[in-house]
Amino acid sequence: MRYSQLLIPTLREDPAEAEVVSHRLMLRAGMIRKLAAGIYSTLPLGERVIQKTRKIIQEEMNRAGAQELTLPFVQPAELWKESGRWDVYGKELLRFIDRGNREFCLGPTHEEVITDLVKGVVTSYRQLPLILYQIHIKFRDEVRPRFGIMRAREFLMKDAYSFDADEKAAAQSYQKMHDAYSRIFTRLGLTFRAVEADTGPIGGSFSHEFMVLADTGEDLIVNCNVCGYAANTEKAAIRTPEIVPQDGKSWKEIQRVATPGMRTVEEVTGYLQVSPRDLIKTLIFTGSDGPFAALVRGDHEINEIKLRNALGCDHIELADEPVIEEQTRAPRGFAGPIGLSIPVIADFGLAGGSNFVTGGNEKDVHLLKVNPERDFKITRYADIRSAAQGDPCPRCDGSLSISRGIEVGHIFKLGTKYSTAMAATYLDQQGREQYLVMGCYGIGVGRTVAAAIEQSHDKDGIIFHPAIAPFAAVVAPVNVKDRQQMEAAEAIYAGLMQKGIDVLLDDRDERPGIKFKDADLIGIPLRITVGAKAAREGTVDIKSRKTGEVQLVNISDAVHTVEETLNKIG
Amino acid sequence: MRYSQLLIPTLREDPAEAEVVSHRLMLRAGMIRKLAAGIYSTLPLGERVIQKTRKIIQEEMNRAGAQELTLPFVQPAELWKESGRWDVYGKELLRFIDRGNREFCLGPTHEEVITDLVKGVVTSYRQLPLILYQIHIKFRDEVRPRFGIMRAREFLMKDAYSFDADEKAAAQSYQKMHDAYSRIFTRLGLTFRAVEADTGPIGGSFSHEFMVLADTGEDLIVNCNVCGYAANTEKAAIRTPEIVPQDGKSWKEIQRVATPGMRTVEEVTGYLQVSPRDLIKTLIFTGSDGPFAALVRGDHEINEIKLRNALGCDHIELADEPVIEEQTRAPRGFAGPIGLSIPVIADFGLAGGSNFVTGGNEKDVHLLKVNPERDFKITRYADIRSAAQGDPCPRCDGSLSISRGIEVGHIFKLGTKYSTAMAATYLDQQGREQYLVMGCYGIGVGRTVAAAIEQSHDKDGIIFHPAIAPFAAVVAPVNVKDRQQMEAAEAIYAGLMQKGIDVLLDDRDERPGIKFKDADLIGIPLRITVGAKAAREGTVDIKSRKTGEVQLVNISDAVHTVEETLNKIG
Repeated sequence: MRYSQLLIPTLREDPAEAEVVSHRLMLRAGMIRKLAAGIYSTLPLGERVIQKTRKIIQEEMNRAGAQELTLPFVQPAELWKESGRWDVYGKELLRFIDRGNREFCLGPTHEEVITDLVKGVVTSYRQLPLILYQIHIKFRDEVRPRFGIMRAREFLMKDAYSFDADEKAAAQSYQKMHDAYSRIFTRLGLTFRAVEADTGPIGGSFSHEFMVLADTGEDLIVNCNVCGYAANTEKAAIRTPEIVPQDGKSWKEIQRVATPGMRTVEEVTGYLQVSPRDLIKTLIFTGSDGPFAALVRGDHEINEIKLRNALGCDHIELADEPVIEEQTRAPRGFAGPIGLSIPVIADFGLAGGSNFVTGGNEKDVHLLKVNPERDFKITRYADIRSAAQGDPCPRCDGSLSISRGIEVGHIFKLGTKYSTAMAATYLDQQGREQYLVMGCYGIGVGRTVAAAIEQSHDKDGIIFHPAIAPFAAVVAPVNVKDRQQMEAAEAIYAGLMQKGIDVLLDDRDERPGIKFKDADLIGIPLRITVGAKAAREGTVDIKSRKTGEVQLVNISDAVHTVEETLNKIG
Repeated sequence: MRYSQLLIPTLREDPAEAEVVSHRLMLRAGMIRKLAAGIYSTLPLGERVIQKTRKIIQEEMNRAGAQELTLPFVQPAELWKESGRWDVYGKELLRFIDRGNREFCLGPTHEEVITDLVKGVVTSYRQLPLILYQIHIKFRDEVRPRFGIMRAREFLMKDAYSFDADEKAAAQSYQKMHDAYSRIFTRLGLTFRAVEADTGPIGGSFSHEFMVLADTGEDLIVNCNVCGYAANTEKAAIRTPEIVPQDGKSWKEIQRVATPGMRTVEEVTGYLQVSPRDLIKTLIFTGSDGPFAALVRGDHEINEIKLRNALGCDHIELADEPVIEEQTRAPRGFAGPIGLSIPVIADFGLAGGSNFVTGGNEKDVHLLKVNPERDFKITRYADIRSAAQGDPCPRCDGSLSISRGIEVGHIFKLGTKYSTAMAATYLDQQGREQYLVMGCYGIGVGRTVAAAIEQSHDKDGIIFHPAIAPFAAVVAPVNVKDRQQMEAAEAIYAGLMQKGIDVLLDDRDERPGIKFKDADLIGIPLRITVGAKAAREGTVDIKSRKTGEVQLVNISDAVHTVEETLNKIG
C-alpha cells in the first residue's frame, strides 16, 4: 500500500495520557485513539496488527479442532441468575434494562451463554468432545481502566470453551488448548511462559496463565531454571523445608526494647540495626473460624491466597483495630506471637531460625532474641508467603528466580461448575444423563499486541515481529521527485507484492528523516532505502529495525534479500 | 472437514418461533440459535457463511481504497449530545450509565464516533479523500425484533464513512461505494437492484438502497424495464402529466346519494357499483402551516413522505376527528373537496379525470359526477402517491413495475450535517478552515445472508451460491462401513481439499437419506454421492443442489468435474 493513501496519524510528542510504553507507542504510531475511559478506537494501522494476530489465533484454534462461532455481546440477566453469578460478579458486570424493562448485561465473559447454547444443541456423547471459540469484544466496567488497550473496558478477546464427557477427556481438551496457545504465542514471535495460576473468580479447579515476559509487566512470575517449573507468585509453591526441633544451644535471652512509634519492618529494623530476615511479622487475621495470627519473616510478603488455601477457608481478612487490640492488648504495629491465645500459622521461611525480633504486644515495645519453640507455640507451619528471588523450587533442588510478565492468555479447567448450575447434560453410551465437563480458554487479543510492544521496543519506537507487523517491509525513496529513485522504488515495491510480502511504499513528499522516524516508530521490520546510490551505483540499503544492521544490495537483488531476511527473522 | 466433528444441529421440524423462510431455514440448518428477543448466537455453520460474506465485503472495500478500523461499540452520551441526536433518536438507542454514573449508549450507528475520531486526526486537505470502514456489531433496541437475524437487535454490520474536501469529491466517494456495493452483491451471487431511496432519520441529502429481490421481501420497489430507473416506493417518482383545462363536454350533473355508514373506498365503491379509479379520497392533514386537504384516486395510496416533500414541510400528520369535523362539517369518512376553505393538494393521478365520486361533507352522504374545475378549486397538483404497478416512469416513456425486495445495503450522501454539528474541519490548500463533506455506507452482513436464503431456497432447504456456501461441496459415502466406498470418498475429499475447494466429508454412520436431507437443508451446491457404483463401476454421482442435475463420472474425474462445475456456477 501507499503511505500517502493511508491514515497513519503519527505523533512526534509523547501523549500525556500514556502511562506505559505500549500505550504511548500505540498512540504515537497512530494505531489507537481513546474515545472514553478504557474505550478505544483501533485505527487502520492498529487494525492490521490486530487482524494478523487474530488470524494466527484462528488458524491454531482451527488446527486444534476448535470451531468458531459468535455469541451475543448483550446477554439476558436470567442466565447469570441461573449460574449464580448475577449477585456475585460485582460492578465490573455492566447491567442495564432494555426498552421492555428486561434486565441485561454486557458480556464480560461467556460461560453462561455458551453453556446455555450447548445445553440446547448437544444431547449425546457422540457429539463430544467439542471445543467452540469466538473472537469478539467483551466489556468489563473496570474501576480504573488504564494502560491503553492493556486494561481497557471494551476489549477484543478470543474465548474458547470445551465440553467433554468426563474429567479424562476434559484433561485432553485442556492439553490441546495448552499446546495451541504455545503454538500461537510462538508464531506471534513472543517470549512467554505458561505458568500455573490461581483460578480466581471464574472458578474451576486448575489453570495456567500465559505470560509474555517484559520488564514493564504488572505480574510477577517465578521460574525454576533447573526443572522449568513456572507459576505466578500468587500461586507459586515453595519447597517444604524439613522442620526439626532445635537443640537450643544458640538461643539467647529475651530482651525488651523501647521502639517508640516504630511500627513497620523498615522502621523497626532500621532503628534496631538488624536485618529484616531476623524479624517476625505478626499479622492478625479474622477467618470463618475466628481470629488467628500469621507469621512471616520481615523480608517476606504474606500471600493471602495461599493463607486462605492453607486454612481451607473461603474468606479471610486482616483484622481491624479492635480485634488486634483485643488479641494483642496493644495498638496495631506492635503485635507479637508471645502470649497469644489464638492459632498461630507460621510461614516455612521461619523454620530453623532463632533469636528473632518480634512485636512486644505492648505499645512502643519490641522484643529481641525471641525463639519459637521456647517462647511461644506455632500451631503449624505452612507455605503462606509469596515466592521471592532465590526461594527453593517446590519440584526440584533448584531455586526460583522472579521475572515480570504480562498475562495474555489464561486456560481453566472448569469441571462441572456451570453445567451443574445450568443443568447442561448429555446422555452417555449407556443412556444415562451426565453433566458436561467444561474448560475455558481466553486470549486478550489487543492485550497480546500491547504485550508484544512492551517486550520489543526501543527509544525510537516499536520493533514488531514480521508475523504481526502492520507491514513486513517499507520501501522508502529518499526523494520522490527523483525519477530514477521512484522507478527503482516502484519496481522493488511491485516485486515484493508479487512475492506476497505485505509492503508499504512511503511515497510521501517528505524529508528522509521523517520517513525513517515514522518507519522506526511504527516498527516495520525491514526498511529498503532507495537513495542517490540507486541511480549512481544501482544499489539500495536494507536495514533491520531490530538489529540496526544494514545490507547494501543491488536493486535487482533487493526483493530476494528482503524475502530471505524476513524468512530468517520469522 | 468431517461432518462427525462439526457441530451442525439440524432440526427435522419447523421451529415454532420462525416467521419467515430464512429464519426457519437458518434455525433448521443449525446456523443460528436465539438467546433473547432479537439476539442470536451464530453457530459454526452460520459463522462460515458470515465469514465468507465478510471476506468478500472486505476485499471489495479494500479494493475501493477504503481502510478498515474498529470503532467502539459502547459510546459516551456526550458525542450524541454534540450531534444533537441524543434527544431525537428515540428508544432504539439503548442508553445506560456505567459504574462512574456517566451516560453511555450501545452504538446503533457510528457517525458520531467516526466524526469525532476523524476530527482529531485529519487536519489537512492532503489527508483527503478518506474512506474508513468497520465490520462490527450494532445494537438497535427495536420495539418488535423479528424474522431471526433479518431484523435483530444485535447485528453485524459493515459501516463505512467517507470524508472529502468538497461536494464534488464527495460525489466521487459516493460513486466508488456504489460501485463497490454492486461488485459485492454480484460476487455474493445475489439478484439485486440499487434503488433511489429516502434518507430517513440518518439524514443527508441523497441515498440509494441496495435491494435483494425476493417475493418474501418487506419492501416494495419500482423498476422501469425500459430505462432501468429503480426506486423504493416511498421515493419513486411518477411522471408529471400534462395538465390541461377540460372542455367540460363530458361533465354530468352532480348527484347527492345516501351512503349510510359507508366510509372506506371498498364500502363506498361496492355500494355504488363504481370502480375505485372513479373515486376521489379526501384526506385532511395538519401541517406546520395549518390544515389542508390531500386528494388521491381511490385506487392509489397517499405517500406521506412525498406529500411532506411536496409541501416542503418538516412535519405533517393526519388530522384528528375535531379538525376533520371543523373543516368538513361531517364525521370522518365523508370528507369531500367541495366547499373546503383550506388548501387542496391533488395527486397527479386525478389530472384529466372527470365525474368522480367524493364524500359529501355530510354524514352518510356521497356525491356523484363531481368535476374539479367546475365544482371546487385545486390549489395545486403534485406527486403525492406511492407508485403502483403500471405507473408512468418519471425518466422515460416506459411504465413502472413493482417487485418485492429486502434492503441489505444503504448508501447516503451526508454532506456537512455531522461535521458542522461536531466542528470537524480541515485546512484547504489556501489554509482556510472548511467543513469535511461526508458520506456513510452500510451493509447488514447477517441480513444479507438471510436475504440470500429468501431469494434462493426450495422446499428441501437453502440453495447457497458457492461464494457463501458453508462448504462448496459435500462428499457423501452411502455406507461408511464399506471399505471401498470410504476409500473412494476419502480420495475425492483429499483431492478437492488439495484444489483449495472447501469440502465437507459426511463421515457419519447414518442412512443415506439423512445425509442427503441434511446436505440439501444446509444448501451445499454440489453433492458427490459415493455408493455401490463406486466399487462396481468405478463411478460416482455429482448432483447440483440448484438444478437437481446429476452427472455420473468416473472416480478419477470427480475432482476435476466438481472444480469445473463450481467455476461454472460461481
